[in-house]
Amino acid sequence: MSLPTSTRTALGAIFAADALSTEPAECLAYAYDNSRRESLPDAVVFPTREEQVVALVRLCREHAIPLTARGRGTNTTGASVPVSAGIVASFERMNRILRIDPDNRMAVVEPGVLNADLQAALKPHGFFWAPDPTSAPYCSIAGNIACNAGGPRAVKYGATRDNVLALRAVNGRGESFRCGKPTSKGATGYDLTRLLVGSEGTLAVITEATLKLTPLASDKRTLRATYVDIGAAASAVARIMAQPVTPCALEYMDDQALRLARNHAGGSIPEAGAMLIIEIDGETDALPSAVAAIRKAASVDGLLELHAASDAAEVATLWAARKALSPALRTIAPNKINEDVVVPVSRVPDLIAGLRDISLRHGIPIVTFGHAGNGNIHVNLLYRPEDPTQAANAPACLSEVFDLVFALDGTLSGEHGIGLVKREFMPRAIDAVSLDLMRRIKAQFDPDGILNPGKLLPD
Amino acid sequence: MSLPTSTRTALGAIFAADALSTEPAECLAYAYDNSRRESLPDAVVFPTREEQVVALVRLCREHAIPLTARGRGTNTTGASVPVSAGIVASFERMNRILRIDPDNRMAVVEPGVLNADLQAALKPHGFFWAPDPTSAPYCSIAGNIACNAGGPRAVKYGATRDNVLALRAVNGRGESFRCGKPTSKGATGYDLTRLLVGSEGTLAVITEATLKLTPLASDKRTLRATYVDIGAAASAVARIMAQPVTPCALEYMDDQALRLARNHAGGSIPEAGAMLIIEIDGETDALPSAVAAIRKAASVDGLLELHAASDAAEVATLWAARKALSPALRTIAPNKINEDVVVPVSRVPDLIAGLRDISLRHGIPIVTFGHAGNGNIHVNLLYRPEDPTQAANAPACLSEVFDLVFALDGTLSGEHGIGLVKREFMPRAIDAVSLDLMRRIKAQFDPDGILNPGKLLPD
Repeated sequence: MSLPTSTRTALGAIFAADALSTEPAECLAYAYDNSRRESLPDAVVFPTREEQVVALVRLCREHAIPLTARGRGTNTTGASVPVSAGIVASFERMNRILRIDPDNRMAVVEPGVLNADLQAALKPHGFFWAPDPTSAPYCSIAGNIACNAGGPRAVKYGATRDNVLALRAVNGRGESFRCGKPTSKGATGYDLTRLLVGSEGTLAVITEATLKLTPLASDKRTLRATYVDIGAAASAVARIMAQPVTPCALEYMDDQALRLARNHAGGSIPEAGAMLIIEIDGETDALPSAVAAIRKAASVDGLLELHAASDAAEVATLWAARKALSPALRTIAPNKINEDVVVPVSRVPDLIAGLRDISLRHGIPIVTFGHAGNGNIHVNLLYRPEDPTQAANAPACLSEVFDLVFALDGTLSGEHGIGLVKREFMPRAIDAVSLDLMRRIKAQFDPDGILNPGKLLPD
Repeated sequence: MSLPTSTRTALGAIFAADALSTEPAECLAYAYDNSRRESLPDAVVFPTREEQVVALVRLCREHAIPLTARGRGTNTTGASVPVSAGIVASFERMNRILRIDPDNRMAVVEPGVLNADLQAALKPHGFFWAPDPTSAPYCSIAGNIACNAGGPRAVKYGATRDNVLALRAVNGRGESFRCGKPTSKGATGYDLTRLLVGSEGTLAVITEATLKLTPLASDKRTLRATYVDIGAAASAVARIMAQPVTPCALEYMDDQALRLARNHAGGSIPEAGAMLIIEIDGETDALPSAVAAIRKAASVDGLLELHAASDAAEVATLWAARKALSPALRTIAPNKINEDVVVPVSRVPDLIAGLRDISLRHGIPIVTFGHAGNGNIHVNLLYRPEDPTQAANAPACLSEVFDLVFALDGTLSGEHGIGLVKREFMPRAIDAVSLDLMRRIKAQFDPDGILNPGKLLPD
């Protein structure tokens, strides 16, 4: 299906020729995201001003054209794939940092600013923005907001939802509105700001964001703790989180993830049943006692070695190994199923034990790593479609993973979101009344269902 | 208007005789809150189980009876006054702490648990719940949630909305639902939890809350800084918030508030143009450098004295004086108008200067104090209705206060909420599209408008 000539003409009245494409070859670059799902849009536009977004939404509404707003497509759930074709609005050119205001601990940005560009601009002021997904160098702020992005720092500094003060957006009626305020407190009506965070472009298109900034800590220590098995590592995580010193990263890798990391980073990555990367930040003179508290909590039965990184190079190696895991797993198993479940921290040992059992029963290797301090475990089912047993077992295996997670009072996603690939599981994660309320809210913001159709909510 | 006999009978089927009253003398205790507004309900009920709440909401819906859920009525905006009569559900007997779970940094409570009772129960575990309104000893957790309560600690630890993980609630259709999860992260659909926080009982009745706990800091230092005038104090506040060490309290009193505090606490409260109470918490060995950083930031032109409290008694005196301010002002001016505005921290000096000007022009004394680190200033118009000039000027004076606040990019309320008394100003605080979205959301949760009618949203 391509757009009627009249619609193309109307689009041309909103966007200059170099900010609009209907060429399939050009549209193809906006057909997919990091989920490897693909669906060709009929047109791609590149807004740079809010008025264009308002005019675009109104045009889409008038002609019932699906509209998918898009940052840099780094999400893993298909949330930015235009499954119903229509128009993709890519915000890559609407990317100015409008204001950095350290006195008020805030920054105002356009949607397309890259996370890492913002962090670089904030650093000289002594501040940072907390969300730090692995894709920080090439993911956009509005993408982070749409998906409620997290990352390792969330264990201490919160995810995106905890770090947005105000938004400007355009709803599915083509109405521009502002919600929130550039203040750290507010009790003035319903919290539309946090309702938009994590709504994956289904309620409104974000055109400006006022972000809460956090002061950079003066100093940091990095520890590497290895354990005989994942059960021991999981107990250490629960103990670390039950005491007062909150690490600014508490990452976990299982034995198979460690093996992969060794392939990537070499012998500096130890062999063990499981490893934690623990970072503690703060004022320099506070760190010795903080590190001592963490060391004590991490020293559970089954600890093999607790090693403090000696220099920046060693820290860099540890993190490079951790960040290489996801691509490395994809190389081994291009069709791996990558889940992003979250359970209460104290249930992580049960989760890991249960996953082992599921893996054995279905003959599908499961590799786990992730943000253990939040109970947010990336569960990778290394499923190979060419193996008939695995192909047959994969759906039941995944379903059992979710059964396990729900039984442990956890949920579908800690930070990746729902998008296309997890929405069929929503009725198992969210009760029927809440799901009905979500649908009703969606219908208020977007009565014609033009904003990112086919995402987040199940049919 | 009293309830028809059939409705009373139906209520009697839900609530035992000792959990239900239609006697005006008993209902009167539930007619008012700390706003001094008053409206007699037709009945008061005391739920202790969620099934009762479900049955109650269904009954109210069937007979179009207004239902006002109530904690302990400590709010100052009339949010718990049953302005349309009907039924008040007081949750004072549904007050069990169901679970304290330090490993997962969370607690599960029934709605009527008192804030201070929870804090006392958490302390042996080394944790606290961040919200600490002045009324902590006698306000309820669900009241804190309904009003998004704050308090001095919010500057470092956030307000209520930042500290609730999950809720169980009954919407205006009489449907029970759960939202959120007992995990510190989640990206699974729209954030209904934070939508309910601050919704003042207009969307749903809270029947259970899962709260995020914070580890208690090991140690604390309290500083008292006095300044020649409020402009100097306000500059110090902006400088303190622009550097990395975040105090756990940054309270402000102007000269008149100080005079009142001296009357209450005696000569230990200094005479000055303005005073800050600054508290810094953390690990003991980190405090010297943290205090040094705060001292440096607080030392602006116009500093009179920067005094470290020497013992717990001195700290207690400072806080007693601060907490006595609101009642003391009410003694002086029983009809005082108590506003709770919030502006970006760097605009506090402009706010204070502007308020001076407004006060002079209208002949109405204005006393200010509050949570300066959040830019959340309690503005007290000491208006005396028996003074004809003040009586004539009061409405315009208040309106100009809000004009000033909006011009400074602030908003109506930092922590008290909207309730009855501020809803007429909502169209000036919230844009028309956002207000329309709020109304539409309300209609989804409560299609017949039975939940706390006449609150938060303007007619």
